[in-house]
Amino acid sequence: MTALKSALPEVDMLTEVADMARFVSGVRGETGKAAAVLRPESSKEMVQAVCALNALGIRYHTQGGNTGLVGASIPDATGEQVVISTERLKDVFEVDLENRSLRVSAGFHLSEVNERLEPHGLFFPIDLGSDPQIGGMIATNTGGGRFLRYGDMRQQVLGLALITSAGEAVKLRGPVRKANTGTDWMQLAIGSASDFGIITEAVLNIEPIPRQQATALIVPKDEAAILPLLQALERLAGPMLSAFEFMSHAAMEAAFAHIPTLRNPFANGVLPQIALLVELSRPNEPAAWETDLDEVLQQILMAIWEGEDVAIEDALFGRADTMWAMRHGLSEGVRCTGKLYAFDLGFRRQDVLAFRAAMQVDLTQQFPDVQICDFGHVGDGGLHFNLVVDPARHSATFEEELRDWVVENAVDRFGASFSAEHGIGPKNQKYFDKYGQTQPFPIN
Amino acid sequence: MTALKSALPEVDMLTEVADMARFVSGVRGETGKAAAVLRPESSKEMVQAVCALNALGIRYHTQGGNTGLVGASIPDATGEQVVISTERLKDVFEVDLENRSLRVSAGFHLSEVNERLEPHGLFFPIDLGSDPQIGGMIATNTGGGRFLRYGDMRQQVLGLALITSAGEAVKLRGPVRKANTGTDWMQLAIGSASDFGIITEAVLNIEPIPRQQATALIVPKDEAAILPLLQALERLAGPMLSAFEFMSHAAMEAAFAHIPTLRNPFANGVLPQIALLVELSRPNEPAAWETDLDEVLQQILMAIWEGEDVAIEDALFGRADTMWAMRHGLSEGVRCTGKLYAFDLGFRRQDVLAFRAAMQVDLTQQFPDVQICDFGHVGDGGLHFNLVVDPARHSATFEEELRDWVVENAVDRFGASFSAEHGIGPKNQKYFDKYGQTQPFPIN
Ligand SMILES: Cc1cc2nc3c(=O)[nH]c(=O)nc-3n(C[C@H](O)[C@H](O)[C@H](O)COP(=O)(O)OP(=O)(O)OC[C@H]3O[C@@H](n4cnc5c(N)ncnc54)[C@H](O)[C@@H]3O)c2cc1C
Ligand SMILES: Cc1cc2nc3c(=O)[nH]c(=O)nc-3n(C[C@H](O)[C@H](O)[C@H](O)COP(=O)(O)OP(=O)(O)OC[C@H]3O[C@@H](n4cnc5c(N)ncnc54)[C@H](O)[C@@H]3O)c2cc1C
Repeated sequence: MTALKSALPEVDMLTEVADMARFVSGVRGETGKAAAVLRPESSKEMVQAVCALNALGIRYHTQGGNTGLVGASIPDATGEQVVISTERLKDVFEVDLENRSLRVSAGFHLSEVNERLEPHGLFFPIDLGSDPQIGGMIATNTGGGRFLRYGDMRQQVLGLALITSAGEAVKLRGPVRKANTGTDWMQLAIGSASDFGIITEAVLNIEPIPRQQATALIVPKDEAAILPLLQALERLAGPMLSAFEFMSHAAMEAAFAHIPTLRNPFANGVLPQIALLVELSRPNEPAAWETDLDEVLQQILMAIWEGEDVAIEDALFGRADTMWAMRHGLSEGVRCTGKLYAFDLGFRRQDVLAFRAAMQVDLTQQFPDVQICDFGHVGDGGLHFNLVVDPARHSATFEEELRDWVVENAVDRFGASFSAEHGIGPKNQKYFDKYGQTQPFPIN
Repeated sequence: MTALKSALPEVDMLTEVADMARFVSGVRGETGKAAAVLRPESSKEMVQAVCALNALGIRYHTQGGNTGLVGASIPDATGEQVVISTERLKDVFEVDLENRSLRVSAGFHLSEVNERLEPHGLFFPIDLGSDPQIGGMIATNTGGGRFLRYGDMRQQVLGLALITSAGEAVKLRGPVRKANTGTDWMQLAIGSASDFGIITEAVLNIEPIPRQQATALIVPKDEAAILPLLQALERLAGPMLSAFEFMSHAAMEAAFAHIPTLRNPFANGVLPQIALLVELSRPNEPAAWETDLDEVLQQILMAIWEGEDVAIEDALFGRADTMWAMRHGLSEGVRCTGKLYAFDLGFRRQDVLAFRAAMQVDLTQQFPDVQICDFGHVGDGGLHFNLVVDPARHSATFEEELRDWVVENAVDRFGASFSAEHGIGPKNQKYFDKYGQTQPFPIN
């Protein structure tokens, strides 16, 4: 690493084990080893870094916010790789109010971007429970909780700059929204981890901050009521519908059991079999010309209740933060219940429920001591299919057997995607090797 | 062609000049020549056709609805190419109501798709003045008039099937919205004409039909008022804003001069320097819980007028069809005024106006007898920059000189895209060769 240091006198470099600790362990406990950590502060330094590493024949691994869930953010175990972290890559931040776009360095965290946009009444519309960096979000094509309304990262990226593995700075597209000039090579880099290079900068679409939100917890009579409810809401609320989240009894139970600060909003605290968190939003401050949004949501639900063939058992209106706290607590709650095997599955919307129904029978038969604690974004077909087992039951063989069985069932029987929003990494490479990226879709 | 016929006994084939006429001339008068026209009726027949053509060493050209504006839909002048038309490729049409998606053969026209979706209360949200086929729309990544609200084709395509030049049937993704399983190769085929193969099928996102629309013609005091008005509308109306169209005096004048059926909505028929067509829409039938949408639009405009720093001269409310007829008449009107040189330019939103302002001075100086008759989608930075000259003045040299000058100014001075939504073809190949697909966007 002395040779690297002297080749890059100006680039920040860590080599102490203690300093490198946070770059070699991931959020789900996975660990690797690094020869050094480089933290370039501009695209120019990034080019220098890549060229120096190439010249010295040193392998490297790109890291953003290190919040990835498939084991792809950290270096491998050999100790031969240098981590290139983008955390100091923050030299560009240019808000373009008129174009409603932002030119930004890859190293900014989502929270930092939103803090800086806030005074302009704007925000970056991808919303999730972690705080990744912009570069990592592009590399993983992050989805998140408002996908239904704003789509994924691909929908927000107008332009990209990256450094190829040969150390060349490449720019692809820019702030112009309508540019239809042949093959859009930029799309390749979105959701491809660092396969096409290190993303250093992007031009992003940004949106007005929602100033009104109305939230309800809805208890459907049964699973069959869920999709008709979603369809009715799409027809009646249109693009105001910004979330439609599904929560199972087991996941809610886990959250209330393990997170004492959560308030149980249900009557007498009795948890239903299923609850749906529905949110409407509008960008403007409440205005004289429109009905209050809470009232609109109530009226729409009333209309559905009365007029449509949708069996709603109950609808709770209350504080949005209480409801979202419960939704966001599911993850942690489930994690505290036992040994967790988490799956990030994508389906046609109706298959989310069909898959669950099948699993309740078949999985329970095949693996009797496994508990299903699932929740997800039914509105866009995403399901966090979580399985909890007694830690004593866990073994690597058992885990692999269970994982293979679930993925096979999801993909082969239901045409699912085995990675809905987390991308590809060591944790699911096996399924990528087996299935590639295609879902079964017959050609006539 | 006898060899081709006997290799493909089951595939529909035209060889009579009269039968082939409509396949060898484009909408803007361009002409080519075909050796034959093949019209396969399934992907299987398409594979057979491509393989037979390859085996015989015959070049082919793919054609959809033949509404393309860059000369790319018709075969070249050699007479050696066979046209493969997708117009009979209509074997698949599967609406998935619950997933809100449509699996469809490439040969269906947009109007046919919408007719068949109508009974379900759904539609395909790309809207334009022609009636192309789904395959051609994907191959050109069609934008259109509701881009502001729904985006382009890329945003709607969930899955694709195509036949490569080697005659292999390939499927890419499918009806699952959230599938983040490595590089999304499907994106390459969108907007790449037939470079990656002949598109035979797609799975598309579909949307609820808007049941309420409110439209106004707004006369801003001057050009400086346009962007603040757009920004205020985005903040106050959010995703209800479905069109924000800009029309110049000259373009409106041309429309009223040449289309006698158009009604002039302005007071005493006096055309303003600039008019904006603004549309709000909502998916639901008018409901008791909300203010009538016309009223909402009026109130929003009133609020902007009173509270914001936006100089609005006048706002006309009236029949949406009258206003849209005027907007849709601009194209034809301009075409009747003289020899037309049309440019399809994409800008950052603010540069639409900056470019116009610069052209009014510089172009008028450089080419004194050229009249600017422009209009466009300011909301997404698209400008139909139309120049009209006395037909007597026209010559190929003059046209080329003028075109080069305009494109250079747009791209070099304003970072524009020289093809905002029409893609690449013989008519703009020269600029693609010169500029490639990148807009100037400096890397730090
Ligand atoms: C509590 C929690 C909730 C989450 N919820 C969601 C969710 O709802 N939706 C969702 O989609 N994800 C979610 N995630 C996963 C994760 O936050 C996202 O995948 C995130 O986008 C990763 O970004 P990062 O900056 O942390 O990248 P990292 O984790 O550092 O890296 C991820 C991958 O991207 C590559 N990479 C990083 N930066 C660059 C760059 N500049 N150029 C090229 N390649 C790069 C890495 O090499 C790696 O392959 C969640 C994670 C946690 C911990
Ligand atoms: C009056 C009018 C208004 C218009 N307005 C707009 C507008 O607002 N926005 C806009 O974007 N465009 C507009 N256009 C342009 C045109 O309608 C679009 O580009 C349309 O999407 C072309 O589709 P098509 O089916 O007609 O394709 P074609 O014109 O037949 O072909 C266009 C290109 O796609 C290729 N192609 C066609 N089908 C396939 C296939 N199945 N597989 C592979 N390649 C294929 C062709 O080889 C060619 O390169 C307008 C055109 C007219 C005449």
